[in-house]
Amino acid sequence: MTNVAVVGVSGYVGGELVRVLLRHHQVRITAVTSEQSAGQPIQTLFPNLAGPDLICEALDPVQVAERADIIFLALPHTKSAGPAATFLKAGRKVLDLSADFRLKDAAAYETWYKTTHPYPALLKTAVYGLPELYREAIRAASLVASPGCYPTAALLSVLPLVQHRLLGDPLIIDAKSGISGAGRSPALPYHFPEANESIEAYQLGSHRHIAEIEQELGVTVTFTPHLIPMTRGILSTAYVRLREPRTSDQLTDLYRKSYKGEPFVRVLNAGQSPNPRHTRGSNFCDVSAFVDPRTGTAILMAALDNLVKGAAGQAVQAMNLMQGWPETLGLQDSGLYP
Amino acid sequence: MTNVAVVGVSGYVGGELVRVLLRHHQVRITAVTSEQSAGQPIQTLFPNLAGPDLICEALDPVQVAERADIIFLALPHTKSAGPAATFLKAGRKVLDLSADFRLKDAAAYETWYKTTHPYPALLKTAVYGLPELYREAIRAASLVASPGCYPTAALLSVLPLVQHRLLGDPLIIDAKSGISGAGRSPALPYHFPEANESIEAYQLGSHRHIAEIEQELGVTVTFTPHLIPMTRGILSTAYVRLREPRTSDQLTDLYRKSYKGEPFVRVLNAGQSPNPRHTRGSNFCDVSAFVDPRTGTAILMAALDNLVKGAAGQAVQAMNLMQGWPETLGLQDSGLYP
Amino acid sequence: MTNVAVVGVSGYVGGELVRVLLRHHQVRITAVTSEQSAGQPIQTLFPNLAGPDLICEALDPVQVAERADIIFLALPHTKSAGPAATFLKAGRKVLDLSADFRLKDAAAYETWYKTTHPYPALLKTAVYGLPELYREAIRAASLVASPGCYPTAALLSVLPLVQHRLLGDPLIIDAKSGISGAGRSPALPYHFPEANESIEAYQLGSHRHIAEIEQELGVTVTFTPHLIPMTRGILSTAYVRLREPRTSDQLTDLYRKSYKGEPFVRVLNAGQSPNPRHTRGSNFCDVSAFVDPRTGTAILMAALDNLVKGAAGQAVQAMNLMQGWPETLGLQDSGLYP
Amino acid sequence: MTNVAVVGVSGYVGGELVRVLLRHHQVRITAVTSEQSAGQPIQTLFPNLAGPDLICEALDPVQVAERADIIFLALPHTKSAGPAATFLKAGRKVLDLSADFRLKDAAAYETWYKTTHPYPALLKTAVYGLPELYREAIRAASLVASPGCYPTAALLSVLPLVQHRLLGDPLIIDAKSGISGAGRSPALPYHFPEANESIEAYQLGSHRHIAEIEQELGVTVTFTPHLIPMTRGILSTAYVRLREPRTSDQLTDLYRKSYKGEPFVRVLNAGQSPNPRHTRGSNFCDVSAFVDPRTGTAILMAALDNLVKGAAGQAVQAMNLMQGWPETLGLQDSGLYP
Repeated sequence: MTNVAVVGVSGYVGGELVRVLLRHHQVRITAVTSEQSAGQPIQTLFPNLAGPDLICEALDPVQVAERADIIFLALPHTKSAGPAATFLKAGRKVLDLSADFRLKDAAAYETWYKTTHPYPALLKTAVYGLPELYREAIRAASLVASPGCYPTAALLSVLPLVQHRLLGDPLIIDAKSGISGAGRSPALPYHFPEANESIEAYQLGSHRHIAEIEQELGVTVTFTPHLIPMTRGILSTAYVRLREPRTSDQLTDLYRKSYKGEPFVRVLNAGQSPNPRHTRGSNFCDVSAFVDPRTGTAILMAALDNLVKGAAGQAVQAMNLMQGWPETLGLQDSGLYP
Repeated sequence: MTNVAVVGVSGYVGGELVRVLLRHHQVRITAVTSEQSAGQPIQTLFPNLAGPDLICEALDPVQVAERADIIFLALPHTKSAGPAATFLKAGRKVLDLSADFRLKDAAAYETWYKTTHPYPALLKTAVYGLPELYREAIRAASLVASPGCYPTAALLSVLPLVQHRLLGDPLIIDAKSGISGAGRSPALPYHFPEANESIEAYQLGSHRHIAEIEQELGVTVTFTPHLIPMTRGILSTAYVRLREPRTSDQLTDLYRKSYKGEPFVRVLNAGQSPNPRHTRGSNFCDVSAFVDPRTGTAILMAALDNLVKGAAGQAVQAMNLMQGWPETLGLQDSGLYP
Repeated sequence: MTNVAVVGVSGYVGGELVRVLLRHHQVRITAVTSEQSAGQPIQTLFPNLAGPDLICEALDPVQVAERADIIFLALPHTKSAGPAATFLKAGRKVLDLSADFRLKDAAAYETWYKTTHPYPALLKTAVYGLPELYREAIRAASLVASPGCYPTAALLSVLPLVQHRLLGDPLIIDAKSGISGAGRSPALPYHFPEANESIEAYQLGSHRHIAEIEQELGVTVTFTPHLIPMTRGILSTAYVRLREPRTSDQLTDLYRKSYKGEPFVRVLNAGQSPNPRHTRGSNFCDVSAFVDPRTGTAILMAALDNLVKGAAGQAVQAMNLMQGWPETLGLQDSGLYP
Repeated sequence: MTNVAVVGVSGYVGGELVRVLLRHHQVRITAVTSEQSAGQPIQTLFPNLAGPDLICEALDPVQVAERADIIFLALPHTKSAGPAATFLKAGRKVLDLSADFRLKDAAAYETWYKTTHPYPALLKTAVYGLPELYREAIRAASLVASPGCYPTAALLSVLPLVQHRLLGDPLIIDAKSGISGAGRSPALPYHFPEANESIEAYQLGSHRHIAEIEQELGVTVTFTPHLIPMTRGILSTAYVRLREPRTSDQLTDLYRKSYKGEPFVRVLNAGQSPNPRHTRGSNFCDVSAFVDPRTGTAILMAALDNLVKGAAGQAVQAMNLMQGWPETLGLQDSGLYP
């Protein structure tokens, strides 16, 4: 049994990390931290949790490093880098679910996050934690920057085109997310009577996840996120001109080959739409490829659970790789449907 | 008082026509028809209706023509053309909410609807009932083909670009609709446990509304409709390269000028997203224009209530024009929010 | 045209008052007040509103009294009594939608609202604004205390039993409300991911609306409110032993007689359930009566829109009575279904 | 590894059985049957399922009996008894999730299900599969009648009162269910635009689950089920006069003692409401007890996932008992929240 800690447990990602880690037979959660809920049992925050006896504590990185070999950080960006540095210095493995180590370039971080990166030196050691892209690097990493929820969906829907040099121009990604993607802090746009029977785009052309997507694809992207009245789930719909013509079936074959052996990517038939309803609570990402025969535009879609493959589950998948464990450990369960 | 009839009243569009017409002081509903509900009071189908004393009857076009000067047809496509011909021959005015008279070209109808058009001669007399585009023609028409819900949103979001010769290539429209857009007939995809916590694209590259959009814009379009867990409302998000560079503010100004004086189109500030939550139950269409400064892609959005501006309300707006009444008669009410 | 003001316009009840008053041909809104939104156009708060040109202002009761003959107060309880006193002194008519004047007994107010009533002398002049119960008194009133949303549903479902001396013991009311009943201020229980796929009871045995219900019925009641994942609507299900046996049909007849001529109460057939889906946006309250033949328990149900018949619409109905106008003015529209 | 079969897999309960059984390390699913989907992989019906390679087949009881030691029947009532008899004759263990063996009395079955019971002789051998009530009998059973979803919630909320002779009269149960409780067959009341923003009672005084509840409690009950706009989950709110006065804290203590050691019943603090949101996807049932100090009425609540503790999970719990396995095997996971 390996000891793990969840730092910043009070949000939805924190709670989901605990839920997923409880199903993992190789780890034991030895610490959960939350400033606002210090002293409270974890079930006060997450009454769904079946066990364990865990009391939230205020974060003391030195203390936590003594009790855990692996630390998951579910803190807001800019708050993560400091504790991460402490944990790494103490020889611990760190999975950071904030944005602090996702961008390779400190200048890009400053551009998108409007603040100087506090530990630019660590950026070189951090590995972007998308197993489908960086599996080997993750195995060797001590610091994994777990990807954002939108980038996970967007990248998995488009990467095979990059690998086969088919990605043309322009690339447009129209993404739709459930409200849990906005976090657990109440605010008017997420107030039930506002978010129900509602859909709107937000942060047009300026969502920070754009930086990640462009870094990994190497092209610019027009990215429009929308909030829709669901709790969990993302559907990403990408549009692109292919560099060379392909049919839907050819593209689907190519996707099947690209993702052959991937434990958590399911390629649907051409013309089928992924639906986050089939990934709820699971680590799967469903993708599909289609070419509109009338216009030649390729339509690449991906659906996933933003709190699992888009956050907690993907981080656990990376942990499995870092530890040399079977990649699917603790993540084999089917989604909850309906 | 002018006598009007609603033919095919049992679906959501039929019920919405009755609701809107009841608020209209110049008309009196003298007949509502439904084969399956013949003999039943209209309130059995729509318990929301405050009055009137109307009994559904099986459709007898000659009979209905005797009792109504204006006939709204809310029948499925291919079922509408026949009764429409009868009503026109009897000198009545017809507003057809099916697709039967939307396409100018009988061959296009055959391509998209997989059947020969039964009354191709009438296609020439039919006017596409989008007041913002064909106001004068509608005034003079006796047969109005009321636009589809998706085309109304898509066209209103993009037309100013056409008028100003700015519409470049490719044009991509990613549309999201509430479930009432799929009609009132139960089927698995619309079963609550399936449609809730769910989003999926459908009819990739093949939705019949494409034909209308392309006809009116004069360009090809990649159109992807999605179903999201709402009852009412459409949000259409269009992406296009402009022929000449414009900023968001320039484009918004241009939209403001294009829609100046339009009673039912509200242009939002650049960067704001329309949201169907603000149009629920009303005849408004909210539009916005934005140019992504990083990629140059224009993002054109429109939100409306698919059953009002996307169906019943728009048809009543056209009727007002046909009758020479104030265009907003019966349609002045605010939407229901929240 | 009579001038009216809405004081405390920023919440859902305030916005709904403006929406309903805009449809009323005898009144003109001359002032809307909101401390937090002073200086902003009303459409910034409620983008659904079609017109008018109204700017929110901070409340100055003397100023408002100069510009309005009738004032609607949509302030939190304890904040309403002071301005109400000023308006009354200036000879204005007041419709208070807070709880400040609903209880006849200042001691009861202190018990349930945990504070001394600031203007106990006014309690005698206030009329409880349920037209179905106090129509004549409302006509003569200058201060109307508009009933709470739950009491409106609960009372309309049970009052015929009181009138016919059939109400036995115990009386249990199990009520279910959409989230807009909790107001417009974001908080965790109303955060979409919490309120969606969720139902819970709250304030067991201690909800303040109990005081109103008991005052008007003259009996004690076990009242349990629940929050369910809807935006608008209340369904109230009451259970009681009848003092004398009645069948479902007899009870339904009795309800039909009690509510004969009532413009906004619809009595459904025995065994049918009211559903707020049929009252959305309208001033109707649907009620039904049923007697379980196996147990003899009567099941009395009522459905309404908490923001209309449960708040803004009912206040406008009372205003119509106070002014000697037709009671249904501005309130004749059908609900929005689906 | 023990071989199990799921007969009637195409509905939501069938799919949930497969999902739960896949997490169970002691069993292997060797057959799934569905007449309408014979020949199709299970993932065509339930795309959420991670593995296994299972093809639906038409039901041949003799064939299935050869390949499975334990058979779960998720067939409609009246269709279950026949196959159950065949399986029992072949020496198999049967868990029937239909209503066919829940009522001890064939006459009661005829009264409530309007048909003669086809195998009344088997009623004596069947054990009502509520582990909290019949744990020992289930261990010894070869035929378990798995309880209905409403009865599970209602019974767990009230049983401690029966055990302590506190259950007075009358007993009123007001229950609220998500739409998946109505099954997977589309019909108008479950069509998204109808079921969304909607709540209604149904089958007043006549729901068949009344028979089960009364059989197990030994008293008559007024039971009113409501459909609310959720996918999964039940909240049951029971009202009763206690035979002897108790405070909320005393009653809560009593519930804690009654359920001490129960692996799947969590007793909340007095005044807290259970919420199915905390049981989603898990086998937990959360209960709470409260006494209204003003009226003396006890309010007993229970929340659970209708497809897990209300169906598939409870049947697996019973299987664990029948097999002598740890009762929680395959059922230890936390619910999915949010």
